[in-house]
Amino acid sequence: MPSGQPSPPTTGGPPTSATANAVLGLLSFGRELSGYDLKKWADHSLQLFFWSPAMSQIYTELQRLESLGLVTSRLEEKADARPRRLYAITDDGRTWLSHWLASEPVDLPMLKNAMVLRVWLGDLMDPDTLTAMVREHRDRLQARLERTREDRRTITGWASMAHAEVVIRWAERYYAAEVENSDLLLEDLAALETPG
Amino acid sequence: MPSGQPSPPTTGGPPTSATANAVLGLLSFGRELSGYDLKKWADHSLQLFFWSPAMSQIYTELQRLESLGLVTSRLEEKADARPRRLYAITDDGRTWLSHWLASEPVDLPMLKNAMVLRVWLGDLMDPDTLTAMVREHRDRLQARLERTREDRRTITGWASMAHAEVVIRWAERYYAAEVENSDLLLEDLAALETPG
Repeated sequence: MPSGQPSPPTTGGPPTSATANAVLGLLSFGRELSGYDLKKWADHSLQLFFWSPAMSQIYTELQRLESLGLVTSRLEEKADARPRRLYAITDDGRTWLSHWLASEPVDLPMLKNAMVLRVWLGDLMDPDTLTAMVREHRDRLQARLERTREDRRTITGWASMAHAEVVIRWAERYYAAEVENSDLLLEDLAALETPG
Repeated sequence: MPSGQPSPPTTGGPPTSATANAVLGLLSFGRELSGYDLKKWADHSLQLFFWSPAMSQIYTELQRLESLGLVTSRLEEKADARPRRLYAITDDGRTWLSHWLASEPVDLPMLKNAMVLRVWLGDLMDPDTLTAMVREHRDRLQARLERTREDRRTITGWASMAHAEVVIRWAERYYAAEVENSDLLLEDLAALETPG
């Protein structure tokens, strides 16, 4: 493996795709993970504030990152199960990721909220259909909030996960505020239907 | 212009692209708008909860929507200025948009927060750089909150904008919660640096 600062690889496409960095980020916590582990963990972490790549995207990215020397893998053989491939980040991968984190501009959050889009165009919708959509949306945010609370209880106090814990606390407040905001939105919509 | 329910157009690509629907949505409020007006209004409305298409995308979409009969345009001549093209939604455009709003599944919001991603990977970053990034991010959210407050004061009470007003009230609460959440995140990061 080449040592020192890797120059930005120029073959196989740019490694700065969001999926590549997501995979490297998940591996940077230091454990060996299978593609399945990566997907599962992405669903409980990245999903809350970024996005969880599809399983097929993860496998494609792992192969590409390995060919670039940013990730390494080994086959784990077990007597009682099918062998599985485990991936780990290399020193070059870690250096690359640190470089990307410090140099890439931090844009304002990109938010695409299809529910709010519908409220905005509410004149074109049946009021009851709209209210039902907002209620369903609110309940899904509530479900996500509850799962986030459970996940926080799981990782609280793991020293190696200090930054992940700070983020999950952020996510818990974020989804709690989203639920509250949806409730107030429902009140505003009800008031539109009964003008005083 | 054909009357009645338009069948989903099959030429010129699908009209359900996010940009196409954004442009139709902006025109659905009933005014004739130029491409420049559309961009300006998108920056003050759609931007808060979805995303604001680029000017070039808006012009491309307007041409396509016009060829599909969902939008119509006329050249406005003025004695003291260059003529400009004004666009309006057609009945078919309105029907199409209503159909899309009621039939498209409402996904959970897609959130890509590059700042939180950095906190999550904070072990790979210099703590002072990370704190400075979060502070800058917090200040940009605060600026957006203040602009949203001004915009709300502008449209409050316009009967034709009742749903847009409900959304801007939602956005004001959303960005206020984001600023507060960033402040608490900064406290958590400071606590990581001074373990008790």
